[in-house]
Amino acid sequence: MNDHNHLALVTDLYQLTMAQSYFHSKKFESATFSLFIRSYPPGRGYFVCTGLEDVLGYLAGLFFEEDAIDYLRSTGIFADDFLKFLKGVRFTGDVWAIPEGRLLFRDEPILEISAPIIEAQIVETFVINQINLQTLIATKASRCVYAAQGRSVVDFSLRRTQGIDAGMKVARSSYITGCTATSNVLAGKLYGIPVVGTMAHSFVSSFEQEIDAFRSFVASFPENSTLLIDTYDTLAGAHKAVKIAREMAASGHRLRGVRIDSGDLLSLAREVRRIFDEAGLTDVKIAGSGGLDEYDLAALSEAGAPYDSYGVGTRMGISADAPWLDMAYKLVEHNGRPVLKLSTGKVSSPAKKQVFRFVDGQGRLKRDVIGLREENLPGAEPLLKKAMEKGRVIGPSPAPKDIRECFLQEFSCLDDCYKTLQNPAAYQVDLSSRLARFREEIQQQVAQDQLDI
Amino acid sequence: MNDHNHLALVTDLYQLTMAQSYFHSKKFESATFSLFIRSYPPGRGYFVCTGLEDVLGYLAGLFFEEDAIDYLRSTGIFADDFLKFLKGVRFTGDVWAIPEGRLLFRDEPILEISAPIIEAQIVETFVINQINLQTLIATKASRCVYAAQGRSVVDFSLRRTQGIDAGMKVARSSYITGCTATSNVLAGKLYGIPVVGTMAHSFVSSFEQEIDAFRSFVASFPENSTLLIDTYDTLAGAHKAVKIAREMAASGHRLRGVRIDSGDLLSLAREVRRIFDEAGLTDVKIAGSGGLDEYDLAALSEAGAPYDSYGVGTRMGISADAPWLDMAYKLVEHNGRPVLKLSTGKVSSPAKKQVFRFVDGQGRLKRDVIGLREENLPGAEPLLKKAMEKGRVIGPSPAPKDIRECFLQEFSCLDDCYKTLQNPAAYQVDLSSRLARFREEIQQQVAQDQLDI
Repeated sequence: MNDHNHLALVTDLYQLTMAQSYFHSKKFESATFSLFIRSYPPGRGYFVCTGLEDVLGYLAGLFFEEDAIDYLRSTGIFADDFLKFLKGVRFTGDVWAIPEGRLLFRDEPILEISAPIIEAQIVETFVINQINLQTLIATKASRCVYAAQGRSVVDFSLRRTQGIDAGMKVARSSYITGCTATSNVLAGKLYGIPVVGTMAHSFVSSFEQEIDAFRSFVASFPENSTLLIDTYDTLAGAHKAVKIAREMAASGHRLRGVRIDSGDLLSLAREVRRIFDEAGLTDVKIAGSGGLDEYDLAALSEAGAPYDSYGVGTRMGISADAPWLDMAYKLVEHNGRPVLKLSTGKVSSPAKKQVFRFVDGQGRLKRDVIGLREENLPGAEPLLKKAMEKGRVIGPSPAPKDIRECFLQEFSCLDDCYKTLQNPAAYQVDLSSRLARFREEIQQQVAQDQLDI
Repeated sequence: MNDHNHLALVTDLYQLTMAQSYFHSKKFESATFSLFIRSYPPGRGYFVCTGLEDVLGYLAGLFFEEDAIDYLRSTGIFADDFLKFLKGVRFTGDVWAIPEGRLLFRDEPILEISAPIIEAQIVETFVINQINLQTLIATKASRCVYAAQGRSVVDFSLRRTQGIDAGMKVARSSYITGCTATSNVLAGKLYGIPVVGTMAHSFVSSFEQEIDAFRSFVASFPENSTLLIDTYDTLAGAHKAVKIAREMAASGHRLRGVRIDSGDLLSLAREVRRIFDEAGLTDVKIAGSGGLDEYDLAALSEAGAPYDSYGVGTRMGISADAPWLDMAYKLVEHNGRPVLKLSTGKVSSPAKKQVFRFVDGQGRLKRDVIGLREENLPGAEPLLKKAMEKGRVIGPSPAPKDIRECFLQEFSCLDDCYKTLQNPAAYQVDLSSRLARFREEIQQQVAQDQLDI
């Protein structure tokens, strides 16, 4: 689907025209760009950092192949001296980043890249693309897991993620934030995520009788069958599943569960549970799926619906109610000079920064402070760590399961008021007094300078 | 980002568990699956078919490599005899499809796949993933182009598409439906789409004075500069651009245009136009961007905003107001037996089908009829063409620019009442009397059969 050798061209053309102009202006000084999210989408009160591993891999491997250069030449837009220079470009900068799986709040830098300005500029598109998607989905998935109140949530979204790359990243991000498995087989292979899935309606329809489909399936998977019972009539399907479970028991096997994918999921689950319980099959699990999101899961949890697990698809996999983040990658320092942008309503903070997290005696999150990188706030944890130095990645990326553990631990220390699905409380994020003062000074200075034509 | 060699694993696990059960049940008969969209997202009255080329390429290349098989074995889910069989699986079926760029309406099959059931089943995930995304975006982009009323619309979405694969497909789909260019450099290379872009705010911010940034840029691109004038103050920026345009004119060059990316886009465009016109620079173009979608473009068009072109990003690139389609891939025939599913509210049409399009004497679209594949409705064009036979693609895929021409021609023959952005008229799609009768019969028969336990 994508062309590995051409990741350097996964960029907006203007990154390269700017690069040429920097080159011709002999601007090779170091610049620092800061990536952050300006506002919460509806209902959100936190974000979960993800996507760093892909960004570091991309930066470490960045280069323009001969035929990428040939293509750029063919557009007639670029000068030969620049293209010759571009061929030698590698990423040689530093990256400071909040590790994957950590909680993030608005305006906090997720990562800051310091590099010769051409390098720091041309990577913008890819960096935003990946961090936006992965953080978006990690956040959405964490809401689904939270709403399921302890029931297992599985990623079923691959068929309706926006493309294959998204399908992979959704599986990884949702696993990190607490989903227990994915239906995405390649994600299972590449990321070491448990994979699950048994049958679809088409399987049932391909047999003349529903019960023959069930019988056929359990013959092939005697230890691991979840029968989809709503192809024709859910309750009739449940009764057939009871029959199958008894046949299996007679031959020493056990029906693992059934899945309901349509209709009134609450009342059907109750009736199906009753059917199994009355048949003495109290250990047959019930899985629910079909257009679910965190709001549905919360409603089912509230009502005590007897589901053991949920499959969530489309709405989680595209973050349907809020399919993007208001993320910006801003130049904050150039050649040692602090920089900020004054466009209407979009004032950014200048200079290299650090995020400091304060927790209470029990480890519960209290507040964050955004300060200057060089600051040291006693009692707080600095969240941005050096992830890359002079173009080299520092240390191996943690495995998704380790990131997941780290997330689950920190998330358990975030008060419910910030996690509630609607109108969450605003987590306190302050600017350090040094940063606030500094920003004020720079803002006045820039406004003054630029209004003189 | 993706692993080319592992596209076969880009599937839901249940496709493979079903395949094993089909294998163990010795079900190798031919099955036909039909892909269609069950309902219009809000405001939509048509769809634009896209994604077929990727689907055909995937089907033609489908196979499970040794290490894919090894991974599947490692899960402990599959039987050895099945894995041995799976290693030999290739796609050997037929595909009938509506060509890319053609208009599509709800319930109409976009494509139908007939193949041994295992092959037709395991490809479902990829097929839906690609056709859903590409048709979704093509449809959204066509609305943006329509709303711009003749002004050029450019795809700026790569940074916020949901992943890299989406970024590529968005560029292609939006070009097909009338966008004139993309900022996505790799899409320019791979699809032959014109690429555009000049500068970002960070470029301007990296110079101490805005006008130095402008001067530096036009020195590097004397024939192709669009200056971004809203970094500090849009009107001050416009005055600086006038100064630059005069300097350029003095040395025999010409400023192409300016771009406004924030603030009140309507009033700013008017003021900026006036500044240029009063300076005698009537040929300097104005581009608008910044969170635009088709509703914004329509409002700007209505108000006569003096923009020459628009850059549309996030909201088009993720189809923000409707980020997925209600698309289904349904088994409609198995081993010569018509099949349908009766789940609540989701009755499908059985058997292999064809879509017949009726146009009037001027070529304007009148109505469509969904019939049986074997029917022949005089005066109508059958839309589904055979695209693959016995696993071989029939003929080369048309180039994006040819698909684009085909789309623009047909779209011009669709009445405005179906294109209006809100509450479009419902285009008439009927079932042929033969299909309607047939579906009724099968429905009764299936309901009867399945309720008997």
